[in-house]
Amino acid sequence: MRNLRLALVGFGTVGQGFTKLLSRKEHYLAEEYDLGVEVTAIVDTVLGTVVDHDGIDLDWALEKVEKDGEISDDKDPDTVGLIREEDFDVLAEITFTDIETGEPATSFIKGAIRSGKHVISTNKGPPALAMTELEELAEENGVIYRYEGTVLSGTPCINLGSEAMGGTEVTAIRGILNGTCNYILEEMEKGTAYEEALSTAQELGYAEADPTADVEGFDAGTKIVILANKLMGADLKISDLDRSGISGLTGDEVRDPDESGLKTKLIASAREDDGEINVEVGVEELPVDDPLAGVNGVLNAATFATDTLGDVTIIGPGAGSEATAQSLLTDLLAINDRL
Amino acid sequence: MRNLRLALVGFGTVGQGFTKLLSRKEHYLAEEYDLGVEVTAIVDTVLGTVVDHDGIDLDWALEKVEKDGEISDDKDPDTVGLIREEDFDVLAEITFTDIETGEPATSFIKGAIRSGKHVISTNKGPPALAMTELEELAEENGVIYRYEGTVLSGTPCINLGSEAMGGTEVTAIRGILNGTCNYILEEMEKGTAYEEALSTAQELGYAEADPTADVEGFDAGTKIVILANKLMGADLKISDLDRSGISGLTGDEVRDPDESGLKTKLIASAREDDGEINVEVGVEELPVDDPLAGVNGVLNAATFATDTLGDVTIIGPGAGSEATAQSLLTDLLAINDRL
Repeated sequence: MRNLRLALVGFGTVGQGFTKLLSRKEHYLAEEYDLGVEVTAIVDTVLGTVVDHDGIDLDWALEKVEKDGEISDDKDPDTVGLIREEDFDVLAEITFTDIETGEPATSFIKGAIRSGKHVISTNKGPPALAMTELEELAEENGVIYRYEGTVLSGTPCINLGSEAMGGTEVTAIRGILNGTCNYILEEMEKGTAYEEALSTAQELGYAEADPTADVEGFDAGTKIVILANKLMGADLKISDLDRSGISGLTGDEVRDPDESGLKTKLIASAREDDGEINVEVGVEELPVDDPLAGVNGVLNAATFATDTLGDVTIIGPGAGSEATAQSLLTDLLAINDRL
Repeated sequence: MRNLRLALVGFGTVGQGFTKLLSRKEHYLAEEYDLGVEVTAIVDTVLGTVVDHDGIDLDWALEKVEKDGEISDDKDPDTVGLIREEDFDVLAEITFTDIETGEPATSFIKGAIRSGKHVISTNKGPPALAMTELEELAEENGVIYRYEGTVLSGTPCINLGSEAMGGTEVTAIRGILNGTCNYILEEMEKGTAYEEALSTAQELGYAEADPTADVEGFDAGTKIVILANKLMGADLKISDLDRSGISGLTGDEVRDPDESGLKTKLIASAREDDGEINVEVGVEELPVDDPLAGVNGVLNAATFATDTLGDVTIIGPGAGSEATAQSLLTDLLAINDRL
């Protein structure tokens, strides 16, 4: 049985979700993949840092954070030093996304790669801002950097386009990449006003207290930039995005689909015009027979137009701590498969 | 640049489609994957056999079969001997499916594996009848056997469930796995009689002259057995299938969805009841908000119920020579990725 040693940097909702998943699936991974996973470091500037070369007891860490609100009182770790010097195989980088700078996540990822460690990450900042640099650095250092969870959480999207249908050329992408907007638009189709739908979404935990990143299309925009760069060979920045959100919509603009025959969706898209790839986020009315029209609630979806398969559409969850944690497990198994 | 040497056994529609794809994508594969592909043998008992250790000119072979209806007059090749003794890396097994015996494909695949060659195949017979045996044999011999194209052609389905969302446990599968039935049912929803819809499907090339395998549910049934065994750890045979097709349906049984609010679909499903996995093919009426309800024409789809992602649905082409050829290319690249 192979044993992989992990360092978790970031122990928030997704980090804890991943820890739960590793604990619950211990026997499954041993039986189906002949794989043991040991977490030798958990690093979090809010919840504390624990390093144990014999492997941290995951259930202990989960209970400790639940009971005490922290795992240790070491809140000022030298994260970069620890990533560089500790002996482990894979960095799980699960810190917060800073879409302006990509930091400190990008430095953590570079530090891991340069010291010969593989990286799995759910952080949109680094691939949105520095995908090519990070992938080239990984290749030079003979390690793997994967980030499936940055788009559609654990629903296969990056893996789908680049591997599960490897060899197809993706010519365009259209997706519902933000569940919060999808939920709010569906409520508005039923006649609910924007403010009321947003407030319900916040109560249900679908929307943040500050909903700007979701409702102004920044989140969906970051994801379509990642997809266009990864799957269409583009070299776009977030500033290249033609973006509009849903916050300015009035009830009149979102029609009842039973009357109009059309569903209102926030669509993120990438397509080639005159040899140039353009990315866009904006509200569209879709005919009901569009595969994206039936994607309701907090579900997400993406349609890939390809040279050999025509349109391929995937529909699944786009958020949630367990679904996002699943992306880390999938990426870990993909690395294991290539060792 | 790595160079992979291929032997193609079977030069029918899919074999020729794969040859066209390899020829068309030669530069793309070199640039994107740093991969060269050389076909050193094409073996077909109807169209003839050519072996060239320097690599067959693919465009020559395609033109020759178009012009002369054959590539050589050697119609009686010792296929098993050739597979064992010729020097190549990957067998592309693309012969006809015999769902009763799995032969001669299973023998070809075993011969390749035993002589240290990887195998990519679109043939449903071998995985439906001998998946475990073939996968164990491949593992013992340190080679890879892949068969993405046996279900949903090049639309990711086996790769999706086992790799692109690796680590999820699939608890149930529901799919529209036969485009011929899907097309006929949609025509019947419009009021067309079964016989007329079938005859149109035959004219359009969607249905065979003998449509039994499609319309009686054998094709969809074979595919759901493959999926249940591969993705749910079942050990089922085709004889375990609870199967009914569409040939006995009258117009009255297929209602107008505009009136009933329901879509009539041939659904192949696998689910666990009391610790046992049951596979079934039969007609169902789906509410319009079921992700499978909107899958029209010759499109196929599968919904996987999972432990960590809830339901994940993929929609794409389920047949066609280019889409099926794409599955071979994807499998070839997956092997290349693991060498």
